[in-house]
Amino acid sequence: MGDGARFTLRALAEALGAGLEGDPDVVVSGVAPLEHAGPEHVSFLTDGRYLAAARSSRAGAFLAGPEAHGLPATVLRVAAPRLALVALLRLFEEARPAPAGIHPAAVIANGAFVDPAASVGAYAVIEEGAIVRARARVMPFAYVGHAAEIGEDSTLHPHAVVLERVRLGRRVIVHAGAVLGADGFGFVPHGGGWLKIPQIGSVVIEDDVEIGANTTIDRSTMGDTLVRRGTKIDNLVQIAHNVEVGADSVIAAQAGIAGSSRLGRHNVVGGQSGIGDHIVLGDDVVLGGAAGVVVDLPEGGRYLGYPARPAAEAKRVWVLESRLPELIRRVRKLERRLAALERPGEGAGESASR
Amino acid sequence: MGDGARFTLRALAEALGAGLEGDPDVVVSGVAPLEHAGPEHVSFLTDGRYLAAARSSRAGAFLAGPEAHGLPATVLRVAAPRLALVALLRLFEEARPAPAGIHPAAVIANGAFVDPAASVGAYAVIEEGAIVRARARVMPFAYVGHAAEIGEDSTLHPHAVVLERVRLGRRVIVHAGAVLGADGFGFVPHGGGWLKIPQIGSVVIEDDVEIGANTTIDRSTMGDTLVRRGTKIDNLVQIAHNVEVGADSVIAAQAGIAGSSRLGRHNVVGGQSGIGDHIVLGDDVVLGGAAGVVVDLPEGGRYLGYPARPAAEAKRVWVLESRLPELIRRVRKLERRLAALERPGEGAGESASR
Amino acid sequence: MGDGARFTLRALAEALGAGLEGDPDVVVSGVAPLEHAGPEHVSFLTDGRYLAAARSSRAGAFLAGPEAHGLPATVLRVAAPRLALVALLRLFEEARPAPAGIHPAAVIANGAFVDPAASVGAYAVIEEGAIVRARARVMPFAYVGHAAEIGEDSTLHPHAVVLERVRLGRRVIVHAGAVLGADGFGFVPHGGGWLKIPQIGSVVIEDDVEIGANTTIDRSTMGDTLVRRGTKIDNLVQIAHNVEVGADSVIAAQAGIAGSSRLGRHNVVGGQSGIGDHIVLGDDVVLGGAAGVVVDLPEGGRYLGYPARPAAEAKRVWVLESRLPELIRRVRKLERRLAALERPGEGAGESASR
Repeated sequence: MGDGARFTLRALAEALGAGLEGDPDVVVSGVAPLEHAGPEHVSFLTDGRYLAAARSSRAGAFLAGPEAHGLPATVLRVAAPRLALVALLRLFEEARPAPAGIHPAAVIANGAFVDPAASVGAYAVIEEGAIVRARARVMPFAYVGHAAEIGEDSTLHPHAVVLERVRLGRRVIVHAGAVLGADGFGFVPHGGGWLKIPQIGSVVIEDDVEIGANTTIDRSTMGDTLVRRGTKIDNLVQIAHNVEVGADSVIAAQAGIAGSSRLGRHNVVGGQSGIGDHIVLGDDVVLGGAAGVVVDLPEGGRYLGYPARPAAEAKRVWVLESRLPELIRRVRKLERRLAALERPGEGAGESASR
Repeated sequence: MGDGARFTLRALAEALGAGLEGDPDVVVSGVAPLEHAGPEHVSFLTDGRYLAAARSSRAGAFLAGPEAHGLPATVLRVAAPRLALVALLRLFEEARPAPAGIHPAAVIANGAFVDPAASVGAYAVIEEGAIVRARARVMPFAYVGHAAEIGEDSTLHPHAVVLERVRLGRRVIVHAGAVLGADGFGFVPHGGGWLKIPQIGSVVIEDDVEIGANTTIDRSTMGDTLVRRGTKIDNLVQIAHNVEVGADSVIAAQAGIAGSSRLGRHNVVGGQSGIGDHIVLGDDVVLGGAAGVVVDLPEGGRYLGYPARPAAEAKRVWVLESRLPELIRRVRKLERRLAALERPGEGAGESASR
Repeated sequence: MGDGARFTLRALAEALGAGLEGDPDVVVSGVAPLEHAGPEHVSFLTDGRYLAAARSSRAGAFLAGPEAHGLPATVLRVAAPRLALVALLRLFEEARPAPAGIHPAAVIANGAFVDPAASVGAYAVIEEGAIVRARARVMPFAYVGHAAEIGEDSTLHPHAVVLERVRLGRRVIVHAGAVLGADGFGFVPHGGGWLKIPQIGSVVIEDDVEIGANTTIDRSTMGDTLVRRGTKIDNLVQIAHNVEVGADSVIAAQAGIAGSSRLGRHNVVGGQSGIGDHIVLGDDVVLGGAAGVVVDLPEGGRYLGYPARPAAEAKRVWVLESRLPELIRRVRKLERRLAALERPGEGAGESASR
């Protein structure tokens, strides 16, 4: 994309540290997958399975690893094509630097601190005692509550909501509409109804975390709901109060983690998965889409289904479920044949029919 | 309910092109379902199953099709009562025309184009290079990002977020809190953590699409995430990057479609359904609530459950699951009876007892 | 955690009406769970199961019920420790009174009524005909639509959206990003596509209801979508048009209730549960996480799974599903043994081998 970014293949090869096999003077103006690419695009082959597709692609050039041969245009040859693709996309990404300073239509409370190197957009609100550190970017309609803290180089996209005392580390990205620090959902039964338990804790988001659009992460009853370093969270995810998510994990869209659960490091939580309350997950747990975890899973590994089972077992159950009608027929037949055997004087042959 | 809209039945019959059987001078001030209607309401019978309920309704008048007889008040007789009900509700809908022009508390960047016939509310932000076409309505707190485009007669409800370069066609409705164009969720494993893949594509929404409150539609890695003409999307739906949704489809609340999946035309996706990544669905696919699609479904038809199966098969599985305890008992009994037969000298009769 | 709130145990005992066993002059500055508490914290024992944990806790004091003995620090003794914990947390909650009056950067339309004792924050918008009653708090970026009503002592958190004609009772809490009154999702098939059914009804939220962040409650086609008194709703919940939720219920995160369903009193709806359209639930229904209700459940009780079944039955099905591989093996073995018996002249012994 890029409004008009254009590169020669020579320039791309230099920027990527790639070998160049073919015409270095070809100019490309975008990146596209194999089936959509035209002569103006550089395409990419990050998985050998697509070699046939690459050979029939109309791309003007290919980014490819050491094994891909017979490609029909100039090749940018790299050792690690997936990482190189990230670098390639960055070159075509539009560099739109954040406007420096504070937009006149932002409201900064007395007693808030905004670093001079931070950027605050139109109609942002930063409440008393809040801290916005260097190179942080607070986009229009973002809200930074009382005594909240936005770390260096972090970005709040439009309409992101960071409520009071929530603390974000460095290079955190909060997408539009995400809400960090709403009250945890806690009530005590009282007189036939429910009494609200004050949620006096907060939320801590460590460095390099990314939080998707309209995701919600609740403040804890006491202490902090915690998302550790490097974890990436997709859209519309719910993280309840007192939860702790380990480092370098990935949580896909619409997953939900109920109160007080603790996830280890490097988990992968599939879309629409649910993790019950007070559950403990170990490291390297991988949950398939819509899995439902109702007991602790201390061991890493892949789990599927509801209730979540080890993947191989879950798949076997799914296959066998489909065979239930056949199984019932077999049992019925067994019952008839056995009844025939039990009745002396009747032949077994007949009962085996049907 | 219309602040005081009142019509004679004569006026309604004319507006709807309906036959009138009864008193044309009765005045009604609202529309209500059969069980809640009073003499001041016109009610409606769009399904013959409710004829008995209609006959005991207190409604002041009925909108009904050709077959409904014996109704206890004046009848507005039409050939297609469901379509006529839409027209009837429109008559009672409050006409609140959008205020013309740009509210003084909106921020329009230099280099944004807002058609003079568009309406922009208080605290809307329209960034540089954005285009808002004729009769489009941008309500308070809506955000139109850099170089985004809002087509003719489209509406952004309060707090709708349309991020950079996203393009909306004509008569598109975006409800409150929806986020179009947040970054797709793409990362490459790197050094034990995750490296963000730049998402340099965008989102295209074709004409006559409706997008529910707090729904999220992510921008693609390259090219466009695409929702085709006439499709209706409910609240809290997730549509991931690179997805293509076919025309005239319906996607109910909290459904999720993972990355790069392609849906055909005229699909109906049930609430809380999930469609895995890189899945292809044909035309006229109907997914029940909470269905989970993990393989391509090229054929139209109705599917249920997780994993999604043809509806008849899924229902059979559900019934047979409930019969598993019974099935296990039957197998245990068979084992006992067979063991008895296998032991020469013991009678079969005894073994048949439980 | 209270910026510096500090209490002597004497003061806490007085405030809570608690007995005091130990040193009344100890000062505490926060509340913490047993495992995290230090000498500066008061901790709590609301469940006898944690007595051992309490005995090894480093807390400076304990809030405990009549049975807990042998605790290693001063005890605040109460009859009902869970209720007393709520009171204790309230003491440590930061009292940040809403700023009185209307922020200069709020837009109040002509013809809106804002009680002089209400608080309206920066960048709030209150449309024509809206009513904001005494001590209501409308926080930054909250939207109050045409003729909407916010009852006494209710709070709209930042970015809450209350659309036209929606009515909130007293002491209602609407968390950030929640959308009340977006159009219900109703369409009539028409010419291969879909015709929008005008949604001319509204939403009524009764007293003491709490609504979570980014939750959506749609306006009804006619009449009102209704949430009755005292009900608590978590984040990212979808409540469709024409739904009625009974009093004193609890609906956990990401649950969804489809159109026109009616829930009785004192229901507990688990996270990610789904209730189909036109479903009727009785009183005291408890749905586990991710349950899917597809038929009426007039009886109270606990239900699990999809489709939702009485809890005992669902658990049995889950266990037996896991035993399906074994069951199939047993049936296969029965078939072999039976075939051997049916073949005269062959011995049963052999066929019993696997």
